[in-house]
Amino acid sequence: MSAKLPEPVQNLIDAFSRLPGIGPKMAARLTFHLLQRSQFDVNRFIGALEGVQQGLRPCEECGHISTDTLCTICSDTGRNTDQICVVEGSLDVIALEKAGSYRGLYHVLGGVLSPMDGIGPDQLRIALLVHRIEARVGKGEGTEVILATNPSLEGEATASYISQQLQSLTDSNLLTISRIARGLPMGSDIEYADPTTLARALEGRNSVHYADHSR
Amino acid sequence: MSAKLPEPVQNLIDAFSRLPGIGPKMAARLTFHLLQRSQFDVNRFIGALEGVQQGLRPCEECGHISTDTLCTICSDTGRNTDQICVVEGSLDVIALEKAGSYRGLYHVLGGVLSPMDGIGPDQLRIALLVHRIEARVGKGEGTEVILATNPSLEGEATASYISQQLQSLTDSNLLTISRIARGLPMGSDIEYADPTTLARALEGRNSVHYADHSR
Repeated sequence: MSAKLPEPVQNLIDAFSRLPGIGPKMAARLTFHLLQRSQFDVNRFIGALEGVQQGLRPCEECGHISTDTLCTICSDTGRNTDQICVVEGSLDVIALEKAGSYRGLYHVLGGVLSPMDGIGPDQLRIALLVHRIEARVGKGEGTEVILATNPSLEGEATASYISQQLQSLTDSNLLTISRIARGLPMGSDIEYADPTTLARALEGRNSVHYADHSR
Repeated sequence: MSAKLPEPVQNLIDAFSRLPGIGPKMAARLTFHLLQRSQFDVNRFIGALEGVQQGLRPCEECGHISTDTLCTICSDTGRNTDQICVVEGSLDVIALEKAGSYRGLYHVLGGVLSPMDGIGPDQLRIALLVHRIEARVGKGEGTEVILATNPSLEGEATASYISQQLQSLTDSNLLTISRIARGLPMGSDIEYADPTTLARALEGRNSVHYADHSR
């Protein structure tokens, strides 16, 4: 951008530009939007940013973002404690909660295995997951672990690493491990689907049971 | 979004959602991006917002955003003072400055005529523009006014309203009024151009002069 803008304006454009998915043009548009609004809007934005500066921490049980020791999901007594859905981040928890059909608990890994970026098992909340499952199995509580990392190279590798780590606990018959289905997204077209998705959709096919009215 | 997120997090998502072009999903992504970064990033963002809270005002001459009485362009002695480019907003000044070929001054209207939104001539910096030109003409200074409002319905109406307001001053032969060219954008395809743009491109055609080597 040119040197024709006052420094505070350029600073705010730069602050927006540093956010993911916001280019310099959009950053300028957002900045001027705020400049044209009342002081109140800018104040409210500052207040919202200050709000996240303090008092937020990962839930001690599942790692989801929280204001207390336990997050709202872990402290909700209405949830099924025998299901633990393992996800990469808090945004995945939000997406799954929005889908609305899952009533179990979560375990937020905080990322995926990515040796290229220096992210190994110790950088993720994998040991905590293993402890969590060990404790349940130790108490004789049946548990299903649903591996819901992304269907990407790293997500698949992370899911298979975790299932290896938990494998010995399945001997107890108290632990089952599953992986969310990979297949054709709803509303999509087989004609336009990519080969990997199609291969997965065939692999993961389900048997269909017709109601037998002749009996 | 669900009630599963801590209030400060939801507040920041809401703050981002209120910005133009940012939907709830992107707002959540931006929020978690900031949450995963250091305190420093959030502080820098707050600092940038606080920076625009004070000391910014429209340039008294042209209306462009400024920290002083005159903006950096109006106070730049290297600019051609005999050209005034009339634009809707400061973002247009930035875009034109980036194009780099214009060395004149600007006049920022602060919007366009839009009776539906209650924006008439008095809500824009039109009277100030007329005074500015009158003063120049009064001093015998030749001036070109380039109307560079957007090629939209409102932009065209605003340009033609302004040219009517300035019409009497053209009798002096000291004032010329022009409108930026409407036509095919560079790199576009005639095949895919919309009919209005094509009509304007034909209307605004320029004669081509070939160098005549036979003389």
